[in-house]
Amino acid sequence: MSTYVLRIDCSDQKGLVHNITGVLFKYGFNITSNGEFVDKERGHFFMRTEFVGEPVKDELIGELRALLPENASVELIEARKKDIVILASTEPHCLGDLLIRHAYDEINARIRAVVSNHERLKALVEGFQIPFHYAPHEGLSREEHERTIREIINRNRPDYIILARYMRIFTPEFISAYHNRIINIHHSFLPAFIGASPYRQAYERGVKIIGATAHFVTNDLDEGPIITQNVTQVDHTYGPHEMQQAGRDVEKVVLAKALKLVFEDRVFINKNKTIIFE
Amino acid sequence: MSTYVLRIDCSDQKGLVHNITGVLFKYGFNITSNGEFVDKERGHFFMRTEFVGEPVKDELIGELRALLPENASVELIEARKKDIVILASTEPHCLGDLLIRHAYDEINARIRAVVSNHERLKALVEGFQIPFHYAPHEGLSREEHERTIREIINRNRPDYIILARYMRIFTPEFISAYHNRIINIHHSFLPAFIGASPYRQAYERGVKIIGATAHFVTNDLDEGPIITQNVTQVDHTYGPHEMQQAGRDVEKVVLAKALKLVFEDRVFINKNKTIIFE
Amino acid sequence: MSTYVLRIDCSDQKGLVHNITGVLFKYGFNITSNGEFVDKERGHFFMRTEFVGEPVKDELIGELRALLPENASVELIEARKKDIVILASTEPHCLGDLLIRHAYDEINARIRAVVSNHERLKALVEGFQIPFHYAPHEGLSREEHERTIREIINRNRPDYIILARYMRIFTPEFISAYHNRIINIHHSFLPAFIGASPYRQAYERGVKIIGATAHFVTNDLDEGPIITQNVTQVDHTYGPHEMQQAGRDVEKVVLAKALKLVFEDRVFINKNKTIIFE
Amino acid sequence: MSTYVLRIDCSDQKGLVHNITGVLFKYGFNITSNGEFVDKERGHFFMRTEFVGEPVKDELIGELRALLPENASVELIEARKKDIVILASTEPHCLGDLLIRHAYDEINARIRAVVSNHERLKALVEGFQIPFHYAPHEGLSREEHERTIREIINRNRPDYIILARYMRIFTPEFISAYHNRIINIHHSFLPAFIGASPYRQAYERGVKIIGATAHFVTNDLDEGPIITQNVTQVDHTYGPHEMQQAGRDVEKVVLAKALKLVFEDRVFINKNKTIIFE
Repeated sequence: MSTYVLRIDCSDQKGLVHNITGVLFKYGFNITSNGEFVDKERGHFFMRTEFVGEPVKDELIGELRALLPENASVELIEARKKDIVILASTEPHCLGDLLIRHAYDEINARIRAVVSNHERLKALVEGFQIPFHYAPHEGLSREEHERTIREIINRNRPDYIILARYMRIFTPEFISAYHNRIINIHHSFLPAFIGASPYRQAYERGVKIIGATAHFVTNDLDEGPIITQNVTQVDHTYGPHEMQQAGRDVEKVVLAKALKLVFEDRVFINKNKTIIFE
Repeated sequence: MSTYVLRIDCSDQKGLVHNITGVLFKYGFNITSNGEFVDKERGHFFMRTEFVGEPVKDELIGELRALLPENASVELIEARKKDIVILASTEPHCLGDLLIRHAYDEINARIRAVVSNHERLKALVEGFQIPFHYAPHEGLSREEHERTIREIINRNRPDYIILARYMRIFTPEFISAYHNRIINIHHSFLPAFIGASPYRQAYERGVKIIGATAHFVTNDLDEGPIITQNVTQVDHTYGPHEMQQAGRDVEKVVLAKALKLVFEDRVFINKNKTIIFE
Repeated sequence: MSTYVLRIDCSDQKGLVHNITGVLFKYGFNITSNGEFVDKERGHFFMRTEFVGEPVKDELIGELRALLPENASVELIEARKKDIVILASTEPHCLGDLLIRHAYDEINARIRAVVSNHERLKALVEGFQIPFHYAPHEGLSREEHERTIREIINRNRPDYIILARYMRIFTPEFISAYHNRIINIHHSFLPAFIGASPYRQAYERGVKIIGATAHFVTNDLDEGPIITQNVTQVDHTYGPHEMQQAGRDVEKVVLAKALKLVFEDRVFINKNKTIIFE
Repeated sequence: MSTYVLRIDCSDQKGLVHNITGVLFKYGFNITSNGEFVDKERGHFFMRTEFVGEPVKDELIGELRALLPENASVELIEARKKDIVILASTEPHCLGDLLIRHAYDEINARIRAVVSNHERLKALVEGFQIPFHYAPHEGLSREEHERTIREIINRNRPDYIILARYMRIFTPEFISAYHNRIINIHHSFLPAFIGASPYRQAYERGVKIIGATAHFVTNDLDEGPIITQNVTQVDHTYGPHEMQQAGRDVEKVVLAKALKLVFEDRVFINKNKTIIFE
């Protein structure tokens, strides 16, 4: 008996919950948790159900589709660790945090590889017996550099690509190659301080709170669907460096929280937003 | 067409969601939100459904009961403002906050009366055209004093009794007369600093965070089911008075949040805890 | 014996603290609290000292000036309640909160008058025996409308003007007439969602946290020095209206906190930022 | 030229700041930050001054002592990394976090050794090239076990001993051997849930917020001076295990923050509380 997550989204209409749970009931599955949400502006229905049982996948999806509107998306996911590739540059705090969670089985994922355009984090990664790929960008066009990275990624067939303080911008081609599968941690409380040096910007503006945002990556830089955000208080004694230090602790916790939610199949993308069944 | 909240709790078993939503679907009600939770330790199921329609109440409850385990509690509540009586002593911050929300229709309740064992808040209450009852406790036994208060409460037939910094302890008789209908704001992060002078206790202990807790009142003082809690940071420059001042802003926001949840029928009591469908 | 706050800011140089405290020591004043800060980027020194004594004001300031760089600003303020005029439009939450604190002496200020371009808050204000001035803007040019408001303000000679959800933009003339004396509560976590309808903007962007910002008003709308900020968590179930409701509790607490700091002479303006001695 | 921290505490009296800064001024030291606090209940003065210069240590302390009350404690500390020994049991989150900060020079300390009564964390520690000492407690009396640990500690001559989720209780002898030098992270918001299994306790009590507390260790278990605390929100869907998971992220951030403050000599112990100059 395995645990499954059933994810459905479709146009809203009456009777959806009754009909969907009817199929699950017929098979005698044991539902362990159930969440529904209707985006009333869009008239769109989202449902996530966790159950224990032994479904014949195609048959179950077929029966559900027969009851659902034509535009329905139906996913049946057997609970398993996600495969991920992490991209990082020089900062160890988010990457290191994920490596430790991974080493002690506290993240629902297998880190297949870490890719970096710098060598600073090599020893850290290899100390955890994870393959580290150094992919320098100097002297390469963006396309050439991305080709190398994509080759490494594709070889590892990840479910998700995690940008753990990776400091370069991708081409639209790269992003669409991994549609809705790239997750970034941005070092500000989006949409404040979009772009470069957000801690410097925050310092110049004299804010009293700084934050971090984990989001899916889309072509609009820093504009993808937000998964999690958090903040911490600062004051006038913080320079840009102290803000950055304080921010790091927020960044790593926000990223880890977002990944936990995504890796448990709790996050739906609803246009440019997320719906999260916690 | 009215809005209804259907609240069900019963022993957990398979098919509950399917069966319950089936009845609602049959009547053609439009479900606007739906929440379920199973307490696995107890094997107990909780469900809250909001829908729009015109049910015949007894018939609907009868049909649902026929499908549910014998121990099921089924409530069908037509959305309406709750009637409340507020008890206060001398501190204006929680009471005043409720009066303003009430005056501008930002709380889902009608304040029927305010009762106080002091006169300090009389002008405040009457400035909002709410009846103020002065019920001094001096020279009275606890039972005599409570008799006066109960007489005022009962005359107003409230759904809930709100203790907005009411500083006296009730007899078990009083509490059981209003079982699960008395809500208190405690000026600490329970279970820390139970009992008198929590801010003094917090100061003596040198804590770096203070909090407030809104909870249902039971016979075990400060031990009833917790509805909401929040905190704020303090430091060594705060004396007991400054902690109290800082705490007041937490108290009033925590109480208002708890009342919003209760007055929208979102809170279930599960033994000594709460389940909240936000 | 009165309590005084001495506020000094000047170019930084060695010996400032020693020299300043030497003067205070010579007079035998009892220093109750003392804060210093150096903005190293600017090379600028700030100091706030609270002491109890009976100074001859001009003499003390003269002695201090003689020891300080030429660009020094020296203020000696006898502790007293600040006089304020509050401007509001239609929302009661911030105004009501200030009225209650005022009624029970929990804000270090005297509310001289409330001015509004709407009549909705009249009863609330008058219930607290505070003069309410209705100053409608319909049919008036911005200059005409501001003339009325300035006349009311000037008659009351306030130390500060508080914008408690006042929804109109001022001319540069108005703002410079009350330089560094106008405090606004902005209903977002600045610099996110500058401009109109920040909660609608926040909803559209799908943020997971919303906030509020109290700041001094300058000619750059929403760009003045930030005094305090705070946030609260939201999720996908919050529409713009629910975000606004949740935001109100943050707004009123953030504004009250900012005013407490300003009214105790704890806030220095340092170019476009604040320095706060808590 | 080195950076120094001067730490003074003594009975409060007039002129202390003037006199102390006078000595520093005479030597021409460049004060970079300065904090003072008076505990008025105790009549006790605390001051922390950071300056750059080349003091003759004994001479400077002698001059200061001559100006200060007899009970004065005067410390002059040259800024340097602290030496620490970390004790852990089986949980990797706090230890791992410190190892990464250490590896990338983001903690003002040198980890001399890690001691554990379990082998689970050996590979983690050795992956960072830090000596790991396995000191099992099975079959040993408490005194025998502590003798082994003290031997390892003493060989490494640490400034501080960090309990990073070390799950055993020390004898009073052990604690007094390292008076005010042992720092613990407690997995609850003290003083709530003192003792064993705080997350289980929190779950049973149905709290809506859980926290963590970093504190100095004294003979009264869980009663030492608190350095930092923080919290995170939970709800009825969290079982004890989920609370523990959520709590871990709070624990590691709270511990790291406390250590940053202690290692920068910002924390004074004031009876059973702390005074912190941030």
